[in-house]
Amino acid sequence: MVESAQETRVPPTALILVDVINSFFLEGMPNYYPAATEVLDPLRRLQAKARETARLIVHTVERHYPGFDDYEWRKLPRHHFIGDPDAALYKGFEPLGPREIVCAKRRYSAFFATDLALFLREQGIERVIIAGVKTNVCIRATVQDAFANGLSVVVPREATNSNRAASLEDIERYSGDVVPLDAALEMLA
Amino acid sequence: MVESAQETRVPPTALILVDVINSFFLEGMPNYYPAATEVLDPLRRLQAKARETARLIVHTVERHYPGFDDYEWRKLPRHHFIGDPDAALYKGFEPLGPREIVCAKRRYSAFFATDLALFLREQGIERVIIAGVKTNVCIRATVQDAFANGLSVVVPREATNSNRAASLEDIERYSGDVVPLDAALEMLA
Amino acid sequence: MVESAQETRVPPTALILVDVINSFFLEGMPNYYPAATEVLDPLRRLQAKARETARLIVHTVERHYPGFDDYEWRKLPRHHFIGDPDAALYKGFEPLGPREIVCAKRRYSAFFATDLALFLREQGIERVIIAGVKTNVCIRATVQDAFANGLSVVVPREATNSNRAASLEDIERYSGDVVPLDAALEMLA
Amino acid sequence: MVESAQETRVPPTALILVDVINSFFLEGMPNYYPAATEVLDPLRRLQAKARETARLIVHTVERHYPGFDDYEWRKLPRHHFIGDPDAALYKGFEPLGPREIVCAKRRYSAFFATDLALFLREQGIERVIIAGVKTNVCIRATVQDAFANGLSVVVPREATNSNRAASLEDIERYSGDVVPLDAALEMLA
Repeated sequence: MVESAQETRVPPTALILVDVINSFFLEGMPNYYPAATEVLDPLRRLQAKARETARLIVHTVERHYPGFDDYEWRKLPRHHFIGDPDAALYKGFEPLGPREIVCAKRRYSAFFATDLALFLREQGIERVIIAGVKTNVCIRATVQDAFANGLSVVVPREATNSNRAASLEDIERYSGDVVPLDAALEMLA
Repeated sequence: MVESAQETRVPPTALILVDVINSFFLEGMPNYYPAATEVLDPLRRLQAKARETARLIVHTVERHYPGFDDYEWRKLPRHHFIGDPDAALYKGFEPLGPREIVCAKRRYSAFFATDLALFLREQGIERVIIAGVKTNVCIRATVQDAFANGLSVVVPREATNSNRAASLEDIERYSGDVVPLDAALEMLA
Repeated sequence: MVESAQETRVPPTALILVDVINSFFLEGMPNYYPAATEVLDPLRRLQAKARETARLIVHTVERHYPGFDDYEWRKLPRHHFIGDPDAALYKGFEPLGPREIVCAKRRYSAFFATDLALFLREQGIERVIIAGVKTNVCIRATVQDAFANGLSVVVPREATNSNRAASLEDIERYSGDVVPLDAALEMLA
Repeated sequence: MVESAQETRVPPTALILVDVINSFFLEGMPNYYPAATEVLDPLRRLQAKARETARLIVHTVERHYPGFDDYEWRKLPRHHFIGDPDAALYKGFEPLGPREIVCAKRRYSAFFATDLALFLREQGIERVIIAGVKTNVCIRATVQDAFANGLSVVVPREATNSNRAASLEDIERYSGDVVPLDAALEMLA
C-alpha cells in the first residue's frame, strides 16, 4: 500500500534548547545540581543531529538586565544577568554556523516578550523539539506557549530533568508529544 | 511598634475565575467529573466576598469560534464553542454588576491573545486571586502569564481541583502564593 | 508561455472591515461627518463580493468596557462602549453566515490585545483587504500590525476616507498595496 | 495658591531613541540622505540631558538575522543585519553607563515582538520621549504602540525628520504631544 504525500510529509522542524547555560551545569554555579548533568549527553546528541541535517537551532537563554528592576525579582533571587558567567551558554552549546540563533528571554517561557513565535513562523517551522533542564519550569512554560502559537511540540524524555513526572504527563495530555530520545533524533534526521 | 504605610499597604486585588462553565460542573457535559463540584462552594465564597467589597471580578471562559479552525484541535477534541451550553457560565457564576467582566479566551491561559493583561493594568490591579477547576491546565497556564506580566499571584488551595499536588508545588515555588481559602478571602476583604 | 502554479497561486484572502459602526455613519453620532458616508457603497461592494465567494470577513469594532478605566481616555473623549448605539455595527454591516466574525478591539489597531493575528493564521489567511473609514487612524494602525505579522496587505483606495493622502502614500511605500476598488474586488473573486 | 502634589507630580520619564544608526546618518549608507543629519544635534541634546539627570535611555535599533527569512523582505530590500555597519549605532549614540539599554527590533515599532513594554513597566516609566529620524515610519509606529500600552507619549518636533507634517498632526491628535525641543529637554530635567 502506498501512503499519500499528505501522510508522509515531514513538518519543518526546529530544535529549541532551553537554558543550556553554566548556571545549571557548572559546579559552584547558583542552580547547579549533579543530576542536571544527565541531560548533557542527550542534548549533545540532539544538537549534533540537528547540525548534521542543517535544522534550525534556537538557543534560548535567560538574560536579565543588570542594574534594572525585573518583575521576576519579586519571587526569585536575582540571577542570570547579561554578561555574567552563570548566564553564559555551557561549553559546547554555543551557536555554530548559519542555522542557529540565540534568543534572549527574561521569563520561563522563551516566547514571552521575545520574537521567537514570529521568527519560527518566518522560517516556516511547524514542529519544535524542546529540550533542556528544568522540565517543570522553563521547558513546560515554553511548551505551553509553543502549543498556544500553533506549533506541534515534541519533548524528548531523556533530554529533560528536574521534577519531570507530573509535567511530562501534563504535556503529553494537553500540549505535545513526549517521546524517547531516539524518536526525537529521528525527527531531526 | 508601628508598621510603616509601605508595609501595610494592600495591593489592589482582583478575582479571576477560570472556566467556571457548565462543561466541568453539569452532569453529562464533556468535561464533567464529580470531584470537580468540590470547588463550587469555595468559588462561591470567593465571588461573594469580592462582590461584598466591590472588588473587580474577571470571569474568564473558553470560547472557540464554531465552524473555524483552531490550533487547539490539533491536540484536543473540539469543545466550548461560542453559544454552546458547555461553554456557558455555570449557574450562579454569571457576571453581576459594574465591577465584573467576561474575558473570552481560546487557550489555557486567560492572558494569551486577549486584552486581560492590559485591562488589569488599566484598572491598577497589582494582585490577582486565581481560582477554578483544572489546576494543572488552565489555572496553571493563567498563573504563569499573570506572573510573567508582573502581577502578584495568589491561588487558594481549596478553590482548585484536578491533579493539584505537583502544580501547586510548582506555583508556590516559581510564580505565586498558594494559600488556604480563608487567607484568600481575607485578601478580598 | 505558461505561468507556473507558483506564479498564479492566489493567496488565501480575508476582508477586514474596520469600525463600520454607527458612530461614523449615523447623523448625530459623535464621529459622524458627511464625507464618511462616501465609503459606504465601496464597503458594501467589498462585503457583497466576499460573501459571494465565501471569503472570510472580520468585522473589527471598537468596544470599550463601560465603567472601567481605559488608557485611551488619557487622550480621547470616552466613546464606543459595549452595548451603546455608537458602537453598534452600521445597518447592513452585521456579520452574516458562517464565514464572518466580530473582533472587538480597544485600540486603533485591530491586532492589539486581540486574537486576530492568531485567528487569521489558524484559517490559513495570507492576504488581507483592509477597509473602513479613518485612514490615518484605525486603518493605518491595523495595516501596520497586519504587515508586522507577515500578512500581505491590500487597501482599496475608494473604501477609505479621512486625511487619506499621506497615509496611503506611507502604506504603499512601507507596508502594503493601495489599489483601486476594482482590483480589490478582483482579489475577492 | 498652592498646587497639590498630584498636580505637580512629574511622571517618570524615559528617552527612546529610534534607529540612530549609520544607515541614515553616514554618507554612502543605504538610507542616508543629507537632511537626516539635521536631527543629530537635537538628538545629542536630548541624550546629553537625559544622561545629566540619569534618566533611562532606550536605544532601539533595527537588527535583522542574517541568512534567515524575515517578513519585512516581502516589502523592503534586505537591510540592517546584526553585525553589519549600517545597523551599528551612529558614533556618539552608543549606550553609556548603567541607565541605558539597547533594544533590538525587527519591525518599525520598537514594541513589536520585543520586551520594551514590559521593561518600561518594570522600571515604573509612565512617559516616553520618542525621537529619531523617520517620523512617518519607525517613530510613528513606535508612538502608536507606546500609546496603546498606556504610556504618555512626547515627540520633540526638531528631533524627527522625513515627511513629518501629516504624521506629527496625527500623533498630536490621536496619540501624543508634539512639543518644541526645549519643552522635551525640560521634561528630562
